[in-house]
Amino acid sequence: MIETKDLEKQYLEYMTKMESYKEALSLIFWDLRTGAPKKGVDRRSDVIGVLSAEVFNMSTSEEMAAYLAQLLQEDVFQSLNDVTKASLLETKKNYDQNKKIPAKEYQDYVVLSTKAESVWEEAKAKSDFAMLQPYLEKLVEYNKKFIDYWGYDNNKYNTLLDLYEPGVTVAMLDEVFGRLKDRIVPLVKAIQNSKVQPRSSELLVPFSKENQQSFSLEVLKELKYDFDAGRLDETVHPFAIGLNPGDVRVTTKYDEQDFRTAVFGTIHECGHALYEQNISTDLVGTGLCTGTSMGIHESQSLFYENFVGRNESFWKRHYKTLQRYANGAFDSLSMEDFYLAINEAKPSLIRIEADELTYALHIMIRYELEKALFNDELEVKDLPKAWDEKYESYLGITPPNDAKGVLQDVHWSGGSFGYFPSYALGYMYAAQFKQAMLKDLPNFDELLEKGELDSIKGWLTEKVHQHGKMKKPLEILKEVTGEELNIDYLIEYLEEKYKGIYQL
Amino acid sequence: MIETKDLEKQYLEYMTKMESYKEALSLIFWDLRTGAPKKGVDRRSDVIGVLSAEVFNMSTSEEMAAYLAQLLQEDVFQSLNDVTKASLLETKKNYDQNKKIPAKEYQDYVVLSTKAESVWEEAKAKSDFAMLQPYLEKLVEYNKKFIDYWGYDNNKYNTLLDLYEPGVTVAMLDEVFGRLKDRIVPLVKAIQNSKVQPRSSELLVPFSKENQQSFSLEVLKELKYDFDAGRLDETVHPFAIGLNPGDVRVTTKYDEQDFRTAVFGTIHECGHALYEQNISTDLVGTGLCTGTSMGIHESQSLFYENFVGRNESFWKRHYKTLQRYANGAFDSLSMEDFYLAINEAKPSLIRIEADELTYALHIMIRYELEKALFNDELEVKDLPKAWDEKYESYLGITPPNDAKGVLQDVHWSGGSFGYFPSYALGYMYAAQFKQAMLKDLPNFDELLEKGELDSIKGWLTEKVHQHGKMKKPLEILKEVTGEELNIDYLIEYLEEKYKGIYQL
Repeated sequence: MIETKDLEKQYLEYMTKMESYKEALSLIFWDLRTGAPKKGVDRRSDVIGVLSAEVFNMSTSEEMAAYLAQLLQEDVFQSLNDVTKASLLETKKNYDQNKKIPAKEYQDYVVLSTKAESVWEEAKAKSDFAMLQPYLEKLVEYNKKFIDYWGYDNNKYNTLLDLYEPGVTVAMLDEVFGRLKDRIVPLVKAIQNSKVQPRSSELLVPFSKENQQSFSLEVLKELKYDFDAGRLDETVHPFAIGLNPGDVRVTTKYDEQDFRTAVFGTIHECGHALYEQNISTDLVGTGLCTGTSMGIHESQSLFYENFVGRNESFWKRHYKTLQRYANGAFDSLSMEDFYLAINEAKPSLIRIEADELTYALHIMIRYELEKALFNDELEVKDLPKAWDEKYESYLGITPPNDAKGVLQDVHWSGGSFGYFPSYALGYMYAAQFKQAMLKDLPNFDELLEKGELDSIKGWLTEKVHQHGKMKKPLEILKEVTGEELNIDYLIEYLEEKYKGIYQL
Repeated sequence: MIETKDLEKQYLEYMTKMESYKEALSLIFWDLRTGAPKKGVDRRSDVIGVLSAEVFNMSTSEEMAAYLAQLLQEDVFQSLNDVTKASLLETKKNYDQNKKIPAKEYQDYVVLSTKAESVWEEAKAKSDFAMLQPYLEKLVEYNKKFIDYWGYDNNKYNTLLDLYEPGVTVAMLDEVFGRLKDRIVPLVKAIQNSKVQPRSSELLVPFSKENQQSFSLEVLKELKYDFDAGRLDETVHPFAIGLNPGDVRVTTKYDEQDFRTAVFGTIHECGHALYEQNISTDLVGTGLCTGTSMGIHESQSLFYENFVGRNESFWKRHYKTLQRYANGAFDSLSMEDFYLAINEAKPSLIRIEADELTYALHIMIRYELEKALFNDELEVKDLPKAWDEKYESYLGITPPNDAKGVLQDVHWSGGSFGYFPSYALGYMYAAQFKQAMLKDLPNFDELLEKGELDSIKGWLTEKVHQHGKMKKPLEILKEVTGEELNIDYLIEYLEEKYKGIYQL
């Protein structure tokens, strides 16, 4: 027993060391995106290279192999505590993933995807898919080979899904997206024919950066973001980042002609940040002290952005303050009109600009294309045509060019296939969580109006945040809601809300 | 030959890896002092521990020993280029320093000095030297043992001086401080009896932080600080820090009742930053890409603070702008009165608040005490009395308590003995450089008045900055000025300036 204790201690120290390098990398990442001087960036990239290589080497080292071999022996494993157990299983998964790909091949792949990302930038600027096509073809080939190395269950694409959302399968997604298509596509069409027109153009008023910042800071405070464990900075592509639970930073972007970018962006990132701020500190240094998956992370950001930030009760409390910071620019817009305006829904071409109602359709399109690619039902060269057809079919609009179509997202050129569905899963999880929360906090809307957000945050922390990676995404979903993945909650929420707004 | 080339390459890669860890550490350090959320600090300290330990381990590893053993062989060494040569010699020096102390002993010493620093904080707050005394005694004992391990030439204290200012000896310092004492002590006394009284109290006007910041940014730009390779942030204890030559950050502190803190502080740190921004990028990753010594670094900050920032010609150009940012608060103070006020000199108790004229006397006192401690002519317990006597003798004032006397500085409780003289050397070097510069730029004052600071920065870059640690401090001094260390330039400068100001 004493020997096992020593080994466990060594393993955890080793993990803490790896996590320390990762924390340093996170700080570098944050700094690069919030104001690092540009002339220092080249050298900083080398620093990133050194630290990342060290993390990778440690995760695949002989020392790591020895820890896993010894601590995963059945009798030894059973004697360990739950945190160490979960840490070992997570580490083993990463170890296998990294080890099964020949080192040289993986290295070539990293070089290729880095190159492809910069080609993508140019291809998008020129709206020239042919430029990117050979890179995408190679990236897809690599990923197919990786699937061969890693193996798969039922559908090759499942292996890619599992990278971002462990446990989620094609069968599950086919089912939920099928229902989404049946119910939301007609609703989107009905809305287009509605006589109701939210006065959204009246939101586009001059609004100084300083005032947007002051309002954003007030909102973060209202949402119970802990400023002793975080800070708000400006950036180009907003993000939240957890260095450790005591240091989780939010970034935002200010558009002086459209306050929504900063305000809803900040609320969204705050949802991510609340997750990372409230993970149990027992998990620090174990590899488990982060969100359990992309989808669960997104469920937290979307919960706050939509169920809190686009909720009428929230604005009953905050609209006067916003009006004040807007220096009278919204004086002619009643709270009710404002509420309708910030919830305008209409088909659009660009995913990241899509509204709450249509967003998941953008994801569904990408999901169907990825699934086809990895099941040899679609070739890379045919992506633009397939893309445009699906946009026409589901959203009723066709991209005028590839820049506004198949080239709009960076994900594929970075080699991220299987990642997109997490965004839609985030919507579904969030709606399912909300439904469960209402059983414990039936006065949800009243809490928003009174500014009593502690109980909402507390509920999410108890059910989701604190566990970090100790629980898998679908395990959390089942425990919290008593159900498997069920898109009906999202559909019902959207139908009720948007039929109301558009008087259908 | 090919084998040597490979070995050299491996050595340089190894150095670059170490330097990468150091760069990450520098970013963490900057972040901690400019706004890192307080709840994340404990965990961040562990990250610092991991990275620092890695740097230390790499610097004393068997791999490092092998590089040094092979590459320092006479015939191999001679075949290497100058940068690798200088890197190896510097690395060897660190290696020996670290290796000669038994690991356990060094570890105990680090623990002791960390503890002593926090004891010092409390002892200073309570003005209770007895609290700190046992710690200081142990720290002095450790340093005496280290001197035994490292060896010494002529005077034990030389070994400590060499840690911070390679090549500088007790013999040199005795000589220069002797001359300083003879000439400056009487001048300080004469000034006290002068009828001239600069209107310094009129500088203490309300001055908003925002306006101080705007003025500081203008001044940095005027001094040719490169904002594409740096940034200005707020902190409690200002510093400049070079992460790499393309990322050298300045920090400052704003006192809304006394603009001098920010303005002269920023100019001072800018001098440090210009040094680090202009080191040759060929030295990146070699261990040589930093200032060559504490004293040379300080010479650059003091050059800008005093020869530029407290120069009448500089204010002829900038006083109007300052008046504007001060919102009229200086309207009744002429440029001439302002110049006298910012150059007020009088004996004071606190080193970091001392003026240009008396500063070196504060250092001289510390030097004499340290020298006595390490030559067994003074015991730790007798420090307070010795301190007070020297302040009375050289500055004509006696500290009312130890908080304002022997306990004022953190250095000794952190185990830094031999560090103080670098500050005074900075003054001497700066005056000597200035004298040499005047031969090439006889119109120095005119350049300031015209805002043509490029030629001044260019001169310092050519003579000092670019070389980084490729040249030793006294080697630079000799090459640039044609002379050994000579305090007469500083004395003559101070006498001329202050006799003028005080009409003596």
